[in-house]
Formats: sequence, C-alpha cells, structure tokens
Amino acid sequence: MEELKVIEIKKSIYASNDAEATKLRNEMKEKRVFLLNLMSSPGSGKTTTLVKTIEELKSEMRIGVIEADIDSDVDAKTILKTGVKAIQLHTGGMCHLDAPMTKEGIDNLGIEEIDLAVLENIGNLVCPASFDTGATKNVMILSVPEGDDKPLKYPLMFEIVDVLLINKIDTMSIFDFDIEAVKKRTKHLNPKIKIFPISARTGEGIKEWTNWLREEVKLVKDGN
Amino acid sequence: MEELKVIEIKKSIYASNDAEATKLRNEMKEKRVFLLNLMSSPGSGKTTTLVKTIEELKSEMRIGVIEADIDSDVDAKTILKTGVKAIQLHTGGMCHLDAPMTKEGIDNLGIEEIDLAVLENIGNLVCPASFDTGATKNVMILSVPEGDDKPLKYPLMFEIVDVLLINKIDTMSIFDFDIEAVKKRTKHLNPKIKIFPISARTGEGIKEWTNWLREEVKLVKDGN
Repeated sequence: MEELKVIEIKKSIYASNDAEATKLRNEMKEKRVFLLNLMSSPGSGKTTTLVKTIEELKSEMRIGVIEADIDSDVDAKTILKTGVKAIQLHTGGMCHLDAPMTKEGIDNLGIEEIDLAVLENIGNLVCPASFDTGATKNVMILSVPEGDDKPLKYPLMFEIVDVLLINKIDTMSIFDFDIEAVKKRTKHLNPKIKIFPISARTGEGIKEWTNWLREEVKLVKDGN
Repeated sequence: MEELKVIEIKKSIYASNDAEATKLRNEMKEKRVFLLNLMSSPGSGKTTTLVKTIEELKSEMRIGVIEADIDSDVDAKTILKTGVKAIQLHTGGMCHLDAPMTKEGIDNLGIEEIDLAVLENIGNLVCPASFDTGATKNVMILSVPEGDDKPLKYPLMFEIVDVLLINKIDTMSIFDFDIEAVKKRTKHLNPKIKIFPISARTGEGIKEWTNWLREEVKLVKDGN
C-alpha cells in the first residue's frame, strides 16, 4: 500500500481557468495520459464505483487517483487499498476543483507513470459543473435514491458531462425512480451523452462502463 | 392552489452578508416569524420532508415556503399542492442563498401573514454552510443512502446546524449505514445538535420532529 500524500490547496491565483484547462488538456494529450473527472452529489457512490473500476482495469493499465475533499482523507485511504497510487487534495472549504488545482494534483501524482488519472471531484452537483478541470472526459454519477428529477434541477451538470452513470440500480424496486424518465430528460439536455446503469455494490453494469473507459484510454494511448 | 411566483435572483450587491443576516434575523424576531433554513445534498428528501411537515402543522399555523433552485420550479409546484403559500427563487447557477436573497424571498412571500417561513436551500453540503441566511434555526437532512461518513467529509455543515434529520431510515436494512456512528460523529462536531431519525415516506419520526418545530415556532410567536 502506497503512503498517503495530502496537499493543502491555496486559493487559485490564476485569472483564467479556461486557458489553464486547455493547457492542461493539451499537456495530458501530449503525454498520452487520460484524465477522467468524476462528479456527483455527496453519497452517490463515487469512491465505491472507482474501486470497482480500478479492480476491473488495474491489471491492464497504470492508474492514479486524485481525491478532492474539503478536509478529510477517508476516500484516498480507501483507494490506496486497491494498490494504485492515490493522493489527497484538500480544498479548504471550496466546493469545486479548477484547472490549476487539478494541475497541482497531476504534478504530485507523477504523470510519467500513469495511463489513466482519475480526479474524484468534491461531492456537489452545482459548482464543479462550472469549472473546466482540463479533463479528457467528464463523468457524473446519479444514484437511484437521489430521484429521477435531478436532470431538471441541476441541468448544467447533465449538459456538460460525456457519461452519466446511474448507480445503485439494485435499489430501484424500493425507490420511486423512473429510469426511462432520467434517460429522456438527460438526452434532452445532452443528446450525445453515454448512459450506463450500474450497481457499484453488486457489480452490475461495471463491465459495460469499463469497456467504454478502456477504449477511451486506448485512444489517448495511441495518440488520438 | 396558489399561483406560483418565480423570482430571478441577481448577484448580491451587499458586501457584508453577516450584517444583513443579523438584520433579517432581528426583523423576523420583531415580527414574530420563525424562519427555518433547510439544507441537504441533492435528493436527500428536503421537499418530501417539508410536505410531511406542512401536513402535520398547517392547521395550527400559517406556513410559507421559499424554494431555491438553480433554474426549475418542480419543488415549488409540489409545495403549492399542500395548500400553503410558496414562491420560487432562481439563483441562476449560484450554489447557495445568502441573507439578501433570503430577504428578497421573505418580502415576496408576505411576512405579515406567516408564522413559519421555510427556506428550502439549494441541494449542496458545501456552500450553504458558509452563508448565514438570517434564519432563526438551521436544519440539515442526511439520508441513509448517502452513507454514514458524511460528518467526516462535510464537517462545517454538521457544525453549524441546530437540527440533523436522518431521513430514509426505512431503507437502513439495505444500506451499510451505521446510525450510531453518524450520531457520534455529529455530536463530536456539534454537542448541542438535536438529531431526529425520520422517514418522510413512511411518516416514521415526523411527529417527534414537528413537536420540536412547533415548540420553537411558539417561542418566537410568544416573543421569546
């Protein structure tokens, strides 16, 4: 198990986040590293999904995880147990990560030894949607207990992501959750989005999701 | 059913939120109106809990609800069906309400005809914790599917509220949720906090919670 590294983030001094994000995205592309930005509400299962994803892919590629949290280390410690590299970013109360913070995380992770870098963003459906981190692809998780009205209430997040993972589908029978309504509402906001229903607990749908991710990482590895 | 009013919020021009919050709190106290600020993650059941709370109390007191949302009206429409007054605030992407926005909501609600005003804040465990709205009391909901680690990950929210409602306790058997751990972690951050386990769906615990609220509204009504 790797030792846990904790970085205290200072408030960003960069005026233009978008320019920094583009710069970071180009740098990652050049170095053939795929950077995934994972976003969701608190408690929708980001870390558990990530653990399942790592278990599926870690024999095939080198994975590194940047955990962002207000002020705790619990998620990074969980990730370290999978055997991959993980570092913890502390945002000190800030509700999102921006590109310079992500760059700091990437630099501390050691980009030369990584094929897939994952940024687990702060649990929040509002702020992270407004800040481009420089990620290659953006993924969000919506969990069944949160309800099928979330695309109506947090439209920007559903608009800007490449993939929606609908998690905790093993609990669908006990919650009043209309998965077809979620798909329809999401496609209305974002016609190109990929949607994978999963259960990080039972493993259902994890193969479909990791098949997509494997292909995307390969594209970057091959210089596309 | 009352007609739905929608207010588009402009970015606050007030420099000092705290001063505005104190002013609003004093004004509410003077006019003997209890203002409740209700916060939680997206999908933890704020609106459903509020509907149950209104059903329990509406025959005894005049209730008005201020619904805050990025850009939708779904919650305010649900509240209107209970027969109480409700208005919708649109924050236009902002992830919290501050005191001037709350004051705008209160003024539009018509404070003279209200005993209990409820502010349903944006679904978010980070930003709303940093902005005093001027509320008489602050309440948060944590729902069982979100997990028992949330006090560790979002400590400020658990520190600043007067009441924690632990919702969806009817689903406790299917989630790995240690309610005693949540209570211990929360009391460690906030020894004076009141904790009520509830299920807004089944109605369990709603009486205990509304008994507390009824007493608090009465204290304000009696000029305490």
